[in-house]
Amino acid sequence: MKQTIITGSGSYIPAIIKKNNDFSNTVFYSDSSEALTAPASEVVEKFKQITGIEERRYADDDMNASDLGALAAKEAIINSGVNPEEIDLLIAAHNFGNVYKHTIQSDAVPSLASLIKHKLQIKNPNCVAFDLLFGCPGWVQGVITADAYFKAGMASKALIVGTETLSRVIDIHDRDSMIFSDGAGATILEYRDSGNEQQGILSSCAQTHALDEVEYINMGCSYYPNSDPAVRYIKMKGRKVYEYAMKYVPAAMKECLDKSGVSIHELKKVFIHQANEKMDDGIIKRLYQLYGIHEVPQLIMPMSIHWLGNSSVATIPTLYDLVKRGSAPPHELQKGDVLLFASVGAGMNINAVCYRY
Amino acid sequence: MKQTIITGSGSYIPAIIKKNNDFSNTVFYSDSSEALTAPASEVVEKFKQITGIEERRYADDDMNASDLGALAAKEAIINSGVNPEEIDLLIAAHNFGNVYKHTIQSDAVPSLASLIKHKLQIKNPNCVAFDLLFGCPGWVQGVITADAYFKAGMASKALIVGTETLSRVIDIHDRDSMIFSDGAGATILEYRDSGNEQQGILSSCAQTHALDEVEYINMGCSYYPNSDPAVRYIKMKGRKVYEYAMKYVPAAMKECLDKSGVSIHELKKVFIHQANEKMDDGIIKRLYQLYGIHEVPQLIMPMSIHWLGNSSVATIPTLYDLVKRGSAPPHELQKGDVLLFASVGAGMNINAVCYRY
Repeated sequence: MKQTIITGSGSYIPAIIKKNNDFSNTVFYSDSSEALTAPASEVVEKFKQITGIEERRYADDDMNASDLGALAAKEAIINSGVNPEEIDLLIAAHNFGNVYKHTIQSDAVPSLASLIKHKLQIKNPNCVAFDLLFGCPGWVQGVITADAYFKAGMASKALIVGTETLSRVIDIHDRDSMIFSDGAGATILEYRDSGNEQQGILSSCAQTHALDEVEYINMGCSYYPNSDPAVRYIKMKGRKVYEYAMKYVPAAMKECLDKSGVSIHELKKVFIHQANEKMDDGIIKRLYQLYGIHEVPQLIMPMSIHWLGNSSVATIPTLYDLVKRGSAPPHELQKGDVLLFASVGAGMNINAVCYRY
Repeated sequence: MKQTIITGSGSYIPAIIKKNNDFSNTVFYSDSSEALTAPASEVVEKFKQITGIEERRYADDDMNASDLGALAAKEAIINSGVNPEEIDLLIAAHNFGNVYKHTIQSDAVPSLASLIKHKLQIKNPNCVAFDLLFGCPGWVQGVITADAYFKAGMASKALIVGTETLSRVIDIHDRDSMIFSDGAGATILEYRDSGNEQQGILSSCAQTHALDEVEYINMGCSYYPNSDPAVRYIKMKGRKVYEYAMKYVPAAMKECLDKSGVSIHELKKVFIHQANEKMDDGIIKRLYQLYGIHEVPQLIMPMSIHWLGNSSVATIPTLYDLVKRGSAPPHELQKGDVLLFASVGAGMNINAVCYRY
């Protein structure tokens, strides 16, 4: 029986390191455009305690999201050993397209998938390349969509890229700007017979909550007083997002795991969207609680948020790539390990994929 | 056997009519920023002869692409009779997101699919809503993607919307600005047993050419001399696009039709992306030539470009909706008719779907 198997991964970690200290001279404003009374150093320290973020990465000025994505993709292709001309589906997940440095336009014409295909110099016209926008869970949704194309007989080798340059869409006067970073991750998926071994995607699920939740993460004016309303930045209702994630993400993860038929005790690693350390800790705790387990197993949840921040669609494929390559010790993957990928973000959207390595 | 069937359609045709005459005082510039020597009235007349466009529609100032899309979607839902809470997949195809009037940013956070779901007040969290970007063929690719989700058992009722406000991204000093328009179209697709009748999607195909072709349609500065390089508009290498379309689109349409097993003589209607009348005429002529037929059948290709212009992803679902409702006489659809949907656009991308009505 054919299975959807990850046969390669890659990531691109931008070179520019932006440390928390670099924000200590910033004047932060509240969402009502009032300057925060606490000194910036205190704001930054509190920020670190909640999010776990100590530093984050920004892309070089002359690089765009499609460039980052192409570098991650190239690594994934090499890692998998696939012949690039045999790839028949290329999905690029992002939310802001290419935003050239010092400009405010999001550019996705041509699509980032086309630009990445171009950079990879893939000739085969039957490698269909499109972009998918689903908030931060976009890369996971790309994996789910490739799985659908495979099962429908419409593709058999896919390149799924998640790439974003959030540093180009942040309001520097908003504390939340410290959360966001740039990055790209990619995987090669192949639909093939894994012989006697059980391997590949076991189950998936996805949700969109768009009633009250639709504006929890959106675009808005700078918090700086009297800012130009025609220039908008990524904005987040942090408390709302936190409560939303706590309420729905563990349940969605459980639904996905239960669908796979695998016991919670078999679960070896959870690759969760790197949004906020406290939130991610809360989610994993609640997932186990849903199974009546009050102690979260050691080493279940690798984290990269401390040094990479939240690079949206890029966090999960980057984290997977790091762990797989042994670059996030002591985390490691063994053949047969059951993994759970899970994400949450603008939409609001949630998804999860259960995978046997 | 289950089939992917279009059970409803809708469209939104914006109210503002922009006639060719409205451009007759414009100063047009070439791509090297030189003012065209011919008077604008002459430029406009020549434009009409080539493209067939006499007028086009622009959205009201306070409406964005997601608003247009929601109106088309609502009509499609009513037309199909589907319970909106049973829709489990919502794909919004576009390329520029929401571009608020008098601003230059493309906004797709949250995704247009989420915003449309919100407008429709669909509660069901299992209605997964994402955006798909694939140039003008995005709506057709949404149909193909829904078909994949259906066949993979991941969804059974889908709403596919194509919506775009190109009037917000045109360079008014570029002749090509007269091509582009605003609009939205939508369809409901259902995966269900059609009993003894053969009905539904028979075959599909898609291609991406991204080597030399990647920049045939892209974003660039205004042709107006010394324009701000940080403000970019949709730009098209018209001659290149024309030659590309002639070379590849008829062949892709033939591939799709042949895959369906249906004879060219059975083909009843071709719904082709409304890009340029001369180009569309050329494509259909060549399609028949590929079968050794030198006379294109009467009434095979409905056209709306004369009064609607090129609204990107919206042209095909809008045209289908018009014909289906009897609003494009003498065109009409009969049960059992074989239809071919085909598109081409930025990427460069091409796709086709063969469908039995």
